[in-house]
Amino acid sequence: MAESPIQSGLRGVVAGTTSLSTVGAGGDNLRYRGYDVEDLAQHAVFEETAYLLLYGELPTRSELDAFEKRLRGMRALPTPLRDVLERIPGDAHPMDVLRTGCSTLGTLYPEQSFAEQDAAAERLLASLPSMLGYWYRFTRFNERIDTATPDATIAGQVLRLLTGREPSDEHRRFMEASLTLYAEHEFNASTFTARVIAGTLSDLYSCVTGAIGALRGPLHGGANEAAMALIEQFREPAEAVAAVRAMLARKEKVMGFGHAVYKHRDPRNDVFKQWSHQLAANAADGYLYPVSEAIEQLMRDEKRLFSNADFYCASAYHFAGIETPLFTPLFAVARVSGWCAHIKEQRADNKLIRPAADYIGIDHRSFVPIDKR
Amino acid sequence: MAESPIQSGLRGVVAGTTSLSTVGAGGDNLRYRGYDVEDLAQHAVFEETAYLLLYGELPTRSELDAFEKRLRGMRALPTPLRDVLERIPGDAHPMDVLRTGCSTLGTLYPEQSFAEQDAAAERLLASLPSMLGYWYRFTRFNERIDTATPDATIAGQVLRLLTGREPSDEHRRFMEASLTLYAEHEFNASTFTARVIAGTLSDLYSCVTGAIGALRGPLHGGANEAAMALIEQFREPAEAVAAVRAMLARKEKVMGFGHAVYKHRDPRNDVFKQWSHQLAANAADGYLYPVSEAIEQLMRDEKRLFSNADFYCASAYHFAGIETPLFTPLFAVARVSGWCAHIKEQRADNKLIRPAADYIGIDHRSFVPIDKR
Repeated sequence: MAESPIQSGLRGVVAGTTSLSTVGAGGDNLRYRGYDVEDLAQHAVFEETAYLLLYGELPTRSELDAFEKRLRGMRALPTPLRDVLERIPGDAHPMDVLRTGCSTLGTLYPEQSFAEQDAAAERLLASLPSMLGYWYRFTRFNERIDTATPDATIAGQVLRLLTGREPSDEHRRFMEASLTLYAEHEFNASTFTARVIAGTLSDLYSCVTGAIGALRGPLHGGANEAAMALIEQFREPAEAVAAVRAMLARKEKVMGFGHAVYKHRDPRNDVFKQWSHQLAANAADGYLYPVSEAIEQLMRDEKRLFSNADFYCASAYHFAGIETPLFTPLFAVARVSGWCAHIKEQRADNKLIRPAADYIGIDHRSFVPIDKR
Repeated sequence: MAESPIQSGLRGVVAGTTSLSTVGAGGDNLRYRGYDVEDLAQHAVFEETAYLLLYGELPTRSELDAFEKRLRGMRALPTPLRDVLERIPGDAHPMDVLRTGCSTLGTLYPEQSFAEQDAAAERLLASLPSMLGYWYRFTRFNERIDTATPDATIAGQVLRLLTGREPSDEHRRFMEASLTLYAEHEFNASTFTARVIAGTLSDLYSCVTGAIGALRGPLHGGANEAAMALIEQFREPAEAVAAVRAMLARKEKVMGFGHAVYKHRDPRNDVFKQWSHQLAANAADGYLYPVSEAIEQLMRDEKRLFSNADFYCASAYHFAGIETPLFTPLFAVARVSGWCAHIKEQRADNKLIRPAADYIGIDHRSFVPIDKR
């Protein structure tokens, strides 16, 4: 087998084809199946985006109604899954909860053949918010909640489950946008994980379980949690500027800035920033918005770095009443739409993904029996 | 970002470096850290191989004793994990059981930092047989077994758990060999999955959970199960030859033959064949050995294909009293040693694994509001 030079991290190596999204096309755009993500985030509910990714086209009104109805019908969790969730400790990593819940769901509603892939994908879309909410409310408040909420869309469902309140229309519309913005991003590490697993022709639950585990890693998901940990330390812009200036002097990494692909702007950030600004008006700690702006300005002036999707997402989620450890799980609730679309795409033109390795270890050596070692 | 031509399935693309194994070095050899796998399979218990992979050198007697003792101490499963296993249906895919059990274990004994990676790897080595055995015996025979068996090694432990009997010394020695032969195989799809997840700096349980999901796929694990399904149809060599000849005429795939890397022989097969021959002598359906030999001869004569590791493994596992659906889970019980060693290696010189994609979808298009679609 002819082998190429080592491609560290496979950066720039084209590992396959996709029709799902372009990152950085036309400069600094993100497009899902050709549509600018800003348009989807501003004018569509998350279900329209999920439908677009899974089925190729934006839904008509009747297609969307039917899709939303199917999803609502799968919000209730089966008893064995609720039992499993109750056995996960309250101090567990919330991504471990989703990973375990997803894997368990695959034992209860197995995907018996690829003819069932759409049903399995829809079940996961509907169930991830329920799993997260059930475990969170059980371990935090000792409540056994009914996860079959009356909300029309996933955005409303997940807000109600995580906050325990009827979501305001403003918060719900923000959540639609955030789920849309996080839905898909080409061959990122979690999506690539899902495709490697799909390449063995394994079931959809195995692919998504693996992807959740990859998104859990601090080099992938979690940047918005880190941004939140930064900004929540401050009440005044001047205080934030002084502290971040000191961080830069100590060469510490400031999370939420710059991007490997986007060169001048992250198209998702404009939408998040707008929402953060708007939600700050009715938030108890709305001062976090000017704090964020001051840090953004400093990073632009000092490091010529722009804020990426994760930066203003942090304050916006916070203003919407979401606790910080639930930010990455919300990313998963959104990205499962992209993962499942990639799994379908991988299966439709499959080849096992199996790269080569460069051996740098010890040459051949003779076995030594244990008593002579 | 400069992009290379599409590397379908990444075949031949060097995705990283490893010191763990060479596949096909020196012709048709498989070596773990420089040692020929045949020597390890014939002269060492599986724990010596696992130690070699995880820690770099074969253990001394006292190192091995301490390692085995630590593993034995972790065979008992925590109550919440037993509760979870009892909620997985009896007709679930056994790999889904391991995937869910592994994920659950990660919520109960989380790897809080990479300083705990060896402890987490050892816990998985000790626990996978227990999870499999507990679920299998509970759902099949309604028994709640004690998984802390007195057996010195994992080979004895897993045989006792899966058969419900004191393992014979001969069966135990065969199981040592089979676990060693399946322990490691460079950047195969499940190991690569583990490394992609590890590349995000996620926890060890996430990496292994993903790897189990990849091994589940029929293009990866499961070839020995397919070989078993073939050979168990026959009682006489002549009957097998006629049937396989007819399969070849119909251009059907005969599982357990040929290999993508090995050109003339699979070094693991010689060991498995020897064991199958030996175990057949005391087996009720020992005729499956001459049946297997007849198929091997026919495939050599007609297709110039050699039998690979999976072919004689099938009859050997069967003769040792293992039910066919447990073959792939046994593969996982062995390979978890290689997975964890690769995770450690990835972490020691980490770079996020994030390839590029070639976009073949629709160009830019304008958003259409739902009522105009």
